[in-house]
Amino acid sequence: MQSSLTPGRVRKAPENFLDGEGIQQAVAEARQGRRDFLRGAFAAAAGVAAAAGAAAAPAPADGDPNILQLPEHSRGLGQPVATDGYGKPSKYEANVQRRTSPGLTQTRQASVSFAPLQSLFGIVTPSGLHFERHHQGWWDIDPSKHRLMVNGQVKAAKVFTMDEIMRLPSVSRFHFIECGANTGMEWGNVAVPTCQYTHGMLSCSEFTGVPLRTLLEMAGVDFRKSRFVLGEGADGSSMTRTVPMDLVESGEVLVAYGQNGEMLRPENGYPLRLVAPGVQGVSWVKYLRRIEVGDQPWNTKDETVHYVDLMPDGTHRQYTSLQECKSVVTTPSGGQVLLDKGFYSITGLAWSGRGKVKAVDVSVDGGRSWRPARLQEPVMSKCLARFSADWVWDGKPAIIQSRATDETGYVQPSYRQLRAVRGTRSIYHNNAIQSWLVEESGEVKNVQVG
Amino acid sequence: MQSSLTPGRVRKAPENFLDGEGIQQAVAEARQGRRDFLRGAFAAAAGVAAAAGAAAAPAPADGDPNILQLPEHSRGLGQPVATDGYGKPSKYEANVQRRTSPGLTQTRQASVSFAPLQSLFGIVTPSGLHFERHHQGWWDIDPSKHRLMVNGQVKAAKVFTMDEIMRLPSVSRFHFIECGANTGMEWGNVAVPTCQYTHGMLSCSEFTGVPLRTLLEMAGVDFRKSRFVLGEGADGSSMTRTVPMDLVESGEVLVAYGQNGEMLRPENGYPLRLVAPGVQGVSWVKYLRRIEVGDQPWNTKDETVHYVDLMPDGTHRQYTSLQECKSVVTTPSGGQVLLDKGFYSITGLAWSGRGKVKAVDVSVDGGRSWRPARLQEPVMSKCLARFSADWVWDGKPAIIQSRATDETGYVQPSYRQLRAVRGTRSIYHNNAIQSWLVEESGEVKNVQVG
Repeated sequence: MQSSLTPGRVRKAPENFLDGEGIQQAVAEARQGRRDFLRGAFAAAAGVAAAAGAAAAPAPADGDPNILQLPEHSRGLGQPVATDGYGKPSKYEANVQRRTSPGLTQTRQASVSFAPLQSLFGIVTPSGLHFERHHQGWWDIDPSKHRLMVNGQVKAAKVFTMDEIMRLPSVSRFHFIECGANTGMEWGNVAVPTCQYTHGMLSCSEFTGVPLRTLLEMAGVDFRKSRFVLGEGADGSSMTRTVPMDLVESGEVLVAYGQNGEMLRPENGYPLRLVAPGVQGVSWVKYLRRIEVGDQPWNTKDETVHYVDLMPDGTHRQYTSLQECKSVVTTPSGGQVLLDKGFYSITGLAWSGRGKVKAVDVSVDGGRSWRPARLQEPVMSKCLARFSADWVWDGKPAIIQSRATDETGYVQPSYRQLRAVRGTRSIYHNNAIQSWLVEESGEVKNVQVG
Repeated sequence: MQSSLTPGRVRKAPENFLDGEGIQQAVAEARQGRRDFLRGAFAAAAGVAAAAGAAAAPAPADGDPNILQLPEHSRGLGQPVATDGYGKPSKYEANVQRRTSPGLTQTRQASVSFAPLQSLFGIVTPSGLHFERHHQGWWDIDPSKHRLMVNGQVKAAKVFTMDEIMRLPSVSRFHFIECGANTGMEWGNVAVPTCQYTHGMLSCSEFTGVPLRTLLEMAGVDFRKSRFVLGEGADGSSMTRTVPMDLVESGEVLVAYGQNGEMLRPENGYPLRLVAPGVQGVSWVKYLRRIEVGDQPWNTKDETVHYVDLMPDGTHRQYTSLQECKSVVTTPSGGQVLLDKGFYSITGLAWSGRGKVKAVDVSVDGGRSWRPARLQEPVMSKCLARFSADWVWDGKPAIIQSRATDETGYVQPSYRQLRAVRGTRSIYHNNAIQSWLVEESGEVKNVQVG
């Protein structure tokens, strides 16, 4: 397969994993002196610019070699304000995309698209790159017709319009959302090549909404008697999940409409979704249309045959609610290439469904020795935390790992530790330490260690 | 001018202020029982849906009036994952746009577009809605060709590529950016109709970048001798601004490439801009190409004839660096309509260029009495803070205000207090208390009080 990095051609976002031959060609081009390679998007810039007919390198003005002409953008008038009432990223970032994995699922409506974590910074996930997980596709629902019913063990069942919900006092909080199946392929040591595919069912946003507790109190609930709520979605899959009442009572569960300052995106549940901080993503019911209050779990289709873990003793572990403490190095990570020895900032993300990340350690020798990483403040509860550590690469093979500890004292386990408890037949809830092998060539690969 | 809210027609984003006749028609339609009006986008939903041929209201199935058919989105397959590798907002949000003000400037390249604060939540500004202020338009610059030079009073001048900058240890911080001219029209009591136009030269993002201090240390700087840096941009206006060294020495000034988790947007300076927390927006030089280190201010064209305030004694106040503590109620705000009496959550934003917001008070009687509002935690330094306060509207006229206090003890002034110090000939740096008059009809208007 031809590499899409040959200069002069427009680079299209690859649908598939970057193949081995493509990697070889990219490395060869890079070693020919094109040093702008660490970020794949920059490597594409030459191709994109050539295709778009952008200005050539500065040429002497009036034939005098001592006078260089400024680039066009330093001389010309430029684009006007509000060229777009809603702007978009640079064309040079066209390769930064969420991606699905062809063949992963039978249909693309019951499927996943992965966030390109290796290309992101900080903790906010750009809403256009938020991962997706749908069971029966997504819709752009008319908010003026959408309703939320609250029924079950309540004094008086209520039906809310969006306007009614949005008039109530709201809160805004930064939280991660992670699919219970994130990193699932690695149970079977599939070794998918990039961080996007190993960990990309993960995103983080500032969510705005009304605490579910407020709506329950308006409907009249008895917290001593009713210890569970059911969330039901309006999409074709009628997603239904039990959520424990303690998380609702604390005010943490939100009926949310805001995502990073604007309304939710349609793929993320517009106009309304449940936000259950720390709980696996499936319980954050999208297109939320009903909340039922009850005194026992509902054992719905979405929590009895799916999202359960087969334990070594043959039983199924159900209702695994919270995403345990986890981390991943996003750079250097699988599929990237280090072109020279020297300084690198190892950086990545850490999170815990139980609260705040307390510490992150980094290893460059496959877990034999560890040192603490810096955590970007402020560290927020049940939210992504960005970490970084300094590293000087000496050109020899290295295995890079991160290991997070949360405020409960829980330490992210190695694969060996996790399998000792969970066996080898799990699909979900894989929070093991991720390893990236840096080869002498500079290529970075997904490996499993310990 | 015809209202764009007539049911059945596609609603286009209005280019101009919503005219008086348009407001009257909208209010009349709302009073005919269409209660979904508080958010203008929802009002458009009926028109958009009709135009797009969306499913009609549920119809009886098999002619049996007791069985309603589910809407199409609850029955059908829906859209696949990664329909867009980079997603976009709901079509029902098409009216949430940044807008320019026709006639405000001679050209649209030396102009402004305003963020729609009245439609936003939390503190993050969606990057597509970030305000713009350009002096000679904007460009989408090839990052592989972009360079940053550091020269002046340094041991050895340096030139950095984007890759070299992005390999260095970085930090990520949430900061507001406000144009020095924000709210400028209100000096002259122009009373522009909406919050978008009174306060919309304001946005907030998670910025990622390298502390400028790191780059200066690499070039070799003497902090005792050199107390100023100059930032220079690569756009046609060659924007150049002096920044005091103390902000650089503290590590706060960043050479930034990340905005809300992805690369900067081209309109916001892709691939590199200065981030000078708390300083007025013009100093956050976009398309940053050069940093010069020196021992006195440069008195550039961009800081001698512009961005100065004419004081009552006839002198010009130069180098007003920090944006003083300020706040605004974003809902209810000018141009909105309250359709009925009852509960409303008064909400808005507060910020200070000197550090953290300490407190926000809200008044509904034009400043005669005040009560504290809730601040959304965590409150971050030189960053937007979201506040809210409960209010029950009794249907009588009310004047809503917010007043912020920052951690230095500085209290946001009224117009009377501000004019007493600054006179009446200022253009910039208007941080006075904003008033919104709620009339008995429910219409909300921009007024100046005190």
